[in-house]
Amino acid sequence: GARALTSAGVRLDLSGVYPPIATPFTEREDVDYDKLEHNLRKYAEIPFKGLVVQGSNGEYPYLTEEERVEVVKRVRRSMPADKLLIAGSGCESTRATLELTAKMAAAGADAVLVVTPCFYKGKMDSHALVQHFTKVADGSEVPLILYSVPANTGLELPLDAVVRLSQHPNIVGLKDSGGDITTMGLIVHKTKDQDFQVLAGSAGFLMAAYCVGAVGGVCALANILGKPLCDLARLCTSGRWEQARELQQRLIEPNAAVTRKLGVPALKQAMDWFGFHGGVCRSPLRPLDQEQTQQLRRDFASNGWL
Amino acid sequence: GARALTSAGVRLDLSGVYPPIATPFTEREDVDYDKLEHNLRKYAEIPFKGLVVQGSNGEYPYLTEEERVEVVKRVRRSMPADKLLIAGSGCESTRATLELTAKMAAAGADAVLVVTPCFYKGKMDSHALVQHFTKVADGSEVPLILYSVPANTGLELPLDAVVRLSQHPNIVGLKDSGGDITTMGLIVHKTKDQDFQVLAGSAGFLMAAYCVGAVGGVCALANILGKPLCDLARLCTSGRWEQARELQQRLIEPNAAVTRKLGVPALKQAMDWFGFHGGVCRSPLRPLDQEQTQQLRRDFASNGWL
Amino acid sequence: GARALTSAGVRLDLSGVYPPIATPFTEREDVDYDKLEHNLRKYAEIPFKGLVVQGSNGEYPYLTEEERVEVVKRVRRSMPADKLLIAGSGCESTRATLELTAKMAAAGADAVLVVTPCFYKGKMDSHALVQHFTKVADGSEVPLILYSVPANTGLELPLDAVVRLSQHPNIVGLKDSGGDITTMGLIVHKTKDQDFQVLAGSAGFLMAAYCVGAVGGVCALANILGKPLCDLARLCTSGRWEQARELQQRLIEPNAAVTRKLGVPALKQAMDWFGFHGGVCRSPLRPLDQEQTQQLRRDFASNGWL
Amino acid sequence: GARALTSAGVRLDLSGVYPPIATPFTEREDVDYDKLEHNLRKYAEIPFKGLVVQGSNGEYPYLTEEERVEVVKRVRRSMPADKLLIAGSGCESTRATLELTAKMAAAGADAVLVVTPCFYKGKMDSHALVQHFTKVADGSEVPLILYSVPANTGLELPLDAVVRLSQHPNIVGLKDSGGDITTMGLIVHKTKDQDFQVLAGSAGFLMAAYCVGAVGGVCALANILGKPLCDLARLCTSGRWEQARELQQRLIEPNAAVTRKLGVPALKQAMDWFGFHGGVCRSPLRPLDQEQTQQLRRDFASNGWL
Repeated sequence: GARALTSAGVRLDLSGVYPPIATPFTEREDVDYDKLEHNLRKYAEIPFKGLVVQGSNGEYPYLTEEERVEVVKRVRRSMPADKLLIAGSGCESTRATLELTAKMAAAGADAVLVVTPCFYKGKMDSHALVQHFTKVADGSEVPLILYSVPANTGLELPLDAVVRLSQHPNIVGLKDSGGDITTMGLIVHKTKDQDFQVLAGSAGFLMAAYCVGAVGGVCALANILGKPLCDLARLCTSGRWEQARELQQRLIEPNAAVTRKLGVPALKQAMDWFGFHGGVCRSPLRPLDQEQTQQLRRDFASNGWL
Repeated sequence: GARALTSAGVRLDLSGVYPPIATPFTEREDVDYDKLEHNLRKYAEIPFKGLVVQGSNGEYPYLTEEERVEVVKRVRRSMPADKLLIAGSGCESTRATLELTAKMAAAGADAVLVVTPCFYKGKMDSHALVQHFTKVADGSEVPLILYSVPANTGLELPLDAVVRLSQHPNIVGLKDSGGDITTMGLIVHKTKDQDFQVLAGSAGFLMAAYCVGAVGGVCALANILGKPLCDLARLCTSGRWEQARELQQRLIEPNAAVTRKLGVPALKQAMDWFGFHGGVCRSPLRPLDQEQTQQLRRDFASNGWL
Repeated sequence: GARALTSAGVRLDLSGVYPPIATPFTEREDVDYDKLEHNLRKYAEIPFKGLVVQGSNGEYPYLTEEERVEVVKRVRRSMPADKLLIAGSGCESTRATLELTAKMAAAGADAVLVVTPCFYKGKMDSHALVQHFTKVADGSEVPLILYSVPANTGLELPLDAVVRLSQHPNIVGLKDSGGDITTMGLIVHKTKDQDFQVLAGSAGFLMAAYCVGAVGGVCALANILGKPLCDLARLCTSGRWEQARELQQRLIEPNAAVTRKLGVPALKQAMDWFGFHGGVCRSPLRPLDQEQTQQLRRDFASNGWL
Repeated sequence: GARALTSAGVRLDLSGVYPPIATPFTEREDVDYDKLEHNLRKYAEIPFKGLVVQGSNGEYPYLTEEERVEVVKRVRRSMPADKLLIAGSGCESTRATLELTAKMAAAGADAVLVVTPCFYKGKMDSHALVQHFTKVADGSEVPLILYSVPANTGLELPLDAVVRLSQHPNIVGLKDSGGDITTMGLIVHKTKDQDFQVLAGSAGFLMAAYCVGAVGGVCALANILGKPLCDLARLCTSGRWEQARELQQRLIEPNAAVTRKLGVPALKQAMDWFGFHGGVCRSPLRPLDQEQTQQLRRDFASNGWL
């Protein structure tokens, strides 16, 4: 576990809220580093624990490897040194994941977030996934965070694989975007001797995740409503559950709108409304049509955010 | 809303824990009313809010209509008068559900639990479901509780249908066995002006459900570990979340074993271990094989219950 | 296998086309036996092999047991003696299925169609299903036809269960509404020593089913376009595949409209257009709205049937 | 449609059988071009219409872009000039797909096979997919074949998108690995004025696909049993359906074994048995264990192929 320890010999503490930052593009769909800088400056004012770069909301499957690394470098340079930079480095093959992980560490990532490979989903059983993540964790210079996002991959990271992998000294946690709160509680329970840290993968169940023992969240909605989400986290960690519930409930519909219902184009549209640079997605993702835009606005407005 | 009020003019308070009781059978698969009495006497000592009769764990699809009603009559006679008797009266057709609802009320049910019809699942959209439940609630002498159990029905009761139905004066709540904690929180949020009561449909997410605003639970596991589940409920309602979490976590695997993983035959097997009468299921449900029995035992033992 | 043999000692020959007849209701949703008679007289003029009564399109889950039996009696009385009457007798429990099977045989059914029980789908593995169907077949006076309809039941009858059950002397075939043509071909292949007969459960893949070795079809669309479907069957059995293909292709959209897309209400609406009595469904099934009605009409008209 | 025409001004004829060739690796998981050559020499003796390079069975998601292009170059150099080389060029983003398509054409591909992007599956509706494929087809020097493989992508290419895209002059066909024979028949029907060519994406339904109007197949099993599959195609095109059926039925289980059941590792294992170079897969795909290997052998042996 040496590598999962900080220079002070302490295991990396993941607790807190992270936005999985969006990648701004120019109208010609090139990465727009200026707009990215703009967003980073604004995020620096919010009490995030850190930033996740190249999560699903960063459109990482649409970036070249060079772009993925370059974005991480730019973020590292711009963000406060005391905040964590978690970089997505998952690819389909183990060898490509190992290579990209090394590049992300070199680019300044404090930890990597590694998604389950999923193309050959019928063959990605516990055995294959344990071997994949173990090889990557063995070879990584920085701690590894497992990443399960069934809505995109069509694959759940099985409980027994998580429990097994939690024992690896260089695997420090899990971002769980599946949202099965029962399983999440069971993961916390069965890894309690491992100092394994669970992060909610969505703002919709952030409070419930804290309730069952998660330590934080990586929430698309934090790109837009970062401050309220940090407030929600603090209410949960300080035991003010009634106030937490009230706030949580107002966040569910805006969150669903920018994730499950309308996706990254909605996330970017709402970012524009809240003073961030969202803008276009890369094709084949398309901008919202008028009706979708109105629906998005309603989901924020009816909950008092617009 | 007159009918949803008690004789004292107060809306029926559903808050608390309920076992959806199992139906004991003789070796020849006839209903064993003596064993049922035995179980009821034991349940009377546990601080349940009431009993649910003819939930999924009662093998109601395997009972004749006569048996369904007779079991309710027997339970009414045996159970303490101050406890609620909630009877399942859902059928595929609206007319059959109306008829059975009337019989259940006459048999002494305080409320009916009405499952989503599901055979023609492709046609059971919000419109059809709202109309079905509205007609049944209109015609029912006792308050109606909606029942969504996708693992059996292959159908989610849609959010907008729940919100719409929550406005019906004779519909007092929802038993949600789906377990999507985000949706559950949103239901609480969007029905907050209706005094609509959400019950968790499984012990696996009982604490999380309380956390997001549910008022109780109908939990298969309460057939076996009723006392600990009532303890869990009290810990949640009194804000002792740390202790609640510890207890909740030890209940997840036993609960999964008697529901999702091994089903009603496991529920009945474990009931036998804990001093209740479980026994055989009706065919085509089959008893556990040796390996399954061992797995079941492990799931209780490894969490300190055996 | 004595019971599966006709009085002449020949195994029951299922080959041919069957409409799974709809059940007409009055405006008050009672069974309308007069309209049923009307339809039966018209069906008598079409070269069907027989009729299926109480298939999914007959709304059998919405009928009482008495109604289910009564409809079979009326059909038996009205239909030509040389045509087969296949009656649906499947229930959730084995004991109820056995009882209804006996009643259907007494009511004049030549064979029974037994759907997979499905409420406890997680427990309905091959073992449970083989035992269920074996007990029913053992106790039945008439031959049994297996019935797999995943769109309604959420359950596939597994291949190994079909192969095992094909060896039972009183199980003569399978109505497969799943439509996986690869599995259908494999069933034909692996039961070829058993004289086991496969019937396509939908008009959409009738030709393909014949191509891989099925002997006929039970097709909702035969309630409306019975003559063309009998033509299609004859083209297939006489090897005129080019003509068959042309006819088959014109039947796919009308078939999809009255099954997967718009369901039984569409089937009944289209029956009205073609001179049969369709009428209303029992609630909670609802009539088509105007837009759906237009879509239905288009699906028939654009293929030259209206 | 000029680009979809050959130099002789004739639309590219796709009819026939293609193996989607496997990519051999060394023990260290590097591409083994010598073994590839060996396989190509053997495939040259089989009456294939051509080869598909970088289909799902080629482990393309595990290859770098450089490797993908290099493999195509090598295949082009080795294979007979009169056979078609179809190269997979699908990526998640439209821009990456355009770039890789250009490289594949430059490397000698006669046509490209473009899979549905799938990571943001919730947003990949007809509109987005039509736009994606249209842009790629607009920019491609060679004809484009649509590729739908739901088992890997979790996404069906919708019928209306196929019909719309069939009108594009540079889109010549569809490889459909979904296997819904009803939809396949409907696609043939609704594109009949477009000279749009449908290829079955699996050997399990090759005969049924021919029956409903497909013109050939891209079949994993052709890596192993290429000759019998070409025989099957000829029996279908010459109308000898009885013989075709007998042969087809013996191919279903071997095909299922090397695709759905046991995947690419089984395909490669069986290739080794039949004189081709299969060998290891790239990690995280793992070799078969002993039990799986025996199952694989049984599926070939019990059908007379071993």
